[in-house]
Amino acid sequence: MSGLAPGAPEVAADHPEPPQTDLSPIADAVEDAGAAGFVAVGYRFADDVRYLSRFGGPDRDYAVVVTADRAALTAPGLFDEQAETEFVDAAPDDGVAREVRTEGQRGPAGRRAANVLDDLADADSDTVLTPADIPHDAALYLENAGYELSSTTAVDDARLTKTEAELACLSRVQAVTCRGMARAEAVLAAAEPDGDDLLFEGEPLTTEILRREVDAEMASHGIRSAGNTVIGSGSTAADLHYTGIDHIAPGETVLLDISPRGPHGYYGDLTRTFVVGSDGGWERRAFVAVEAAHEEALTNVEAGATAGTVHEEAAAELTAHGFRIDSSEVGFTHGVGHGVGVSLHEGPSLRADTPLQAGNVVTIEPGVYDPDIGGVRIEDLVAVTEDGYERLASYPVRFTPVNAE
Amino acid sequence: MSGLAPGAPEVAADHPEPPQTDLSPIADAVEDAGAAGFVAVGYRFADDVRYLSRFGGPDRDYAVVVTADRAALTAPGLFDEQAETEFVDAAPDDGVAREVRTEGQRGPAGRRAANVLDDLADADSDTVLTPADIPHDAALYLENAGYELSSTTAVDDARLTKTEAELACLSRVQAVTCRGMARAEAVLAAAEPDGDDLLFEGEPLTTEILRREVDAEMASHGIRSAGNTVIGSGSTAADLHYTGIDHIAPGETVLLDISPRGPHGYYGDLTRTFVVGSDGGWERRAFVAVEAAHEEALTNVEAGATAGTVHEEAAAELTAHGFRIDSSEVGFTHGVGHGVGVSLHEGPSLRADTPLQAGNVVTIEPGVYDPDIGGVRIEDLVAVTEDGYERLASYPVRFTPVNAE
Repeated sequence: MSGLAPGAPEVAADHPEPPQTDLSPIADAVEDAGAAGFVAVGYRFADDVRYLSRFGGPDRDYAVVVTADRAALTAPGLFDEQAETEFVDAAPDDGVAREVRTEGQRGPAGRRAANVLDDLADADSDTVLTPADIPHDAALYLENAGYELSSTTAVDDARLTKTEAELACLSRVQAVTCRGMARAEAVLAAAEPDGDDLLFEGEPLTTEILRREVDAEMASHGIRSAGNTVIGSGSTAADLHYTGIDHIAPGETVLLDISPRGPHGYYGDLTRTFVVGSDGGWERRAFVAVEAAHEEALTNVEAGATAGTVHEEAAAELTAHGFRIDSSEVGFTHGVGHGVGVSLHEGPSLRADTPLQAGNVVTIEPGVYDPDIGGVRIEDLVAVTEDGYERLASYPVRFTPVNAE
Repeated sequence: MSGLAPGAPEVAADHPEPPQTDLSPIADAVEDAGAAGFVAVGYRFADDVRYLSRFGGPDRDYAVVVTADRAALTAPGLFDEQAETEFVDAAPDDGVAREVRTEGQRGPAGRRAANVLDDLADADSDTVLTPADIPHDAALYLENAGYELSSTTAVDDARLTKTEAELACLSRVQAVTCRGMARAEAVLAAAEPDGDDLLFEGEPLTTEILRREVDAEMASHGIRSAGNTVIGSGSTAADLHYTGIDHIAPGETVLLDISPRGPHGYYGDLTRTFVVGSDGGWERRAFVAVEAAHEEALTNVEAGATAGTVHEEAAAELTAHGFRIDSSEVGFTHGVGHGVGVSLHEGPSLRADTPLQAGNVVTIEPGVYDPDIGGVRIEDLVAVTEDGYERLASYPVRFTPVNAE
């Protein structure tokens, strides 16, 4: 059997070009602090460094150094051409002159960063801004070179608001995510209850079979990392990041939370919950409540709204439906959403007392759980706009799965 | 068209159980140093923390604390049941008593680690061992709590030698990797030269089409993260970690370096190079040289052999075939291999002056490159044994791709 449940979006054959990073907010933070510069250290899987450099380099630490008007990437020599292409040639016109520095390649990234900073910095200052979680060895190299570290949230802040190019990346990943979900829904709809089993192509259906169908569908559209296909069934649907293997029984909640990563590092995030052969008990009540809370939360999303209000309104709706809020095990146990970008979880928090901004990309994902029964969550990924929100891609909300077209 | 080129291994339907981690080498390092304990801080994608805890928890930092006979994981409350299952219940009998600590959940991981260490440590010592790259903010919390940090390589050292359970994980991932390669080879064999194009199902073949075929095949066998399918064609075959999109022309080297990550975090790593419609020039000479160097390198792999010898012997073979060694652009530009485990690149280095040990898992991957023409690399993943090596999975070496069975 192949096919998708109805309502999945079409996807473009090709992924958009990599977004460019405007480094001027980092350069401005350096200038405002009167600092010599900013230093981030990490390797190609570190999200901040990936965002700042757009460099898909080695599995060894390298550094990004930014001063008030210049920026350097300390690439290993084997990767210098790739670094020139990705960091320098592809850069936007943001007033920050970029270069690749390959000297001292075999030395530690922190020492190389200190040397480059000595060379680039105009400011008469010993202060260097860094993310708080810079590797400790890199911090010590900077301190030994005479710098005093001061932590900055400038990168987190810059990442809060997405550009059009970032939205295009996120949208395509989310559209492919919807197609993965449509594949799972089609498989569930084709499965036949048989005693305690759901039979799919003659075999008892498991979450692992479902996961492989989802991941293969997404891979066929160019998603490169499908390592976050969380699927719970019955009681494991109450475990938030569960990726184990379970037998799926009729009448159980099957919760799929699909968060793949696209070629340029941006994530999708989509959750649906289905039940095959429900007898209309807890899971039906939970679904109705969560669907209402999801809609209520969405109506509160717009630029200028207080982020925490979105959570509170979802919680109020779930309370009105008789579900608990204050427990870590039963009811609505988590926040209503989080930002998504080159990290799966980033700002803004939807529990914070700060206003949402146009260009924030957030999940809206209320859920209720009972570890003895199951869990229901419904999640969409939306971009905040001046007067509301836009879904990055849309997929129907259905309790009973529908057959392939 | 579907199908695989001949010679791909069969794979078991299910992935093996997660390996357990013997924490006694870490506890011994604490005792030997007379330290209060060991602390690692990271989130679920940080390789050390994943290895130490086997916990697939949240996208927020947590800590693993180990003393001479106890160990604690500071899990967030939402994940305490999962932490108990994965860190405590699944632990081996290694003399280290494990527990999950959920107090102070909303505080920073470094402060929580310091509190747990205050509570667990017997030793009358202010020294705490940490990996050198512990996040700087966590290091500061530990220092503010009165501890003096001392960096340790105990975790890297423990990871050097794989257990039977780790070898089983690596072997299945590598077997699935071979099937991904077999899919790519079948597609290449089915492609028809047409002027400057290779036509596959009527369309000009690109590296992206090939990548999607590989990744979908691996996903269908339960590989969860196929984000490292490096494919170069012609000149981009000379770029080591290149994942861009290229048109594939007849006569060009097509280099596929496939490094997916399995469900428990272990990587596979396999490289083959094919040419469709070769006229027998540089690429044929390069292939013959690299195949000979690959075989020569393998004959030098055994427990007790000096690691660097493996590199030197491969280099000598390539020199004998007339290829350069000392350049960063032309010839043999990189090391002959590296360790693989829960990191794609880890110890041992095959350039080091230290003996190989039984249970090391290393790639053997000589290659030669000319940025104006292309690149050829052949790579297998092997476990070092007392009297030689064993491939974790085998796949034929062929220059001209062979059709699907």
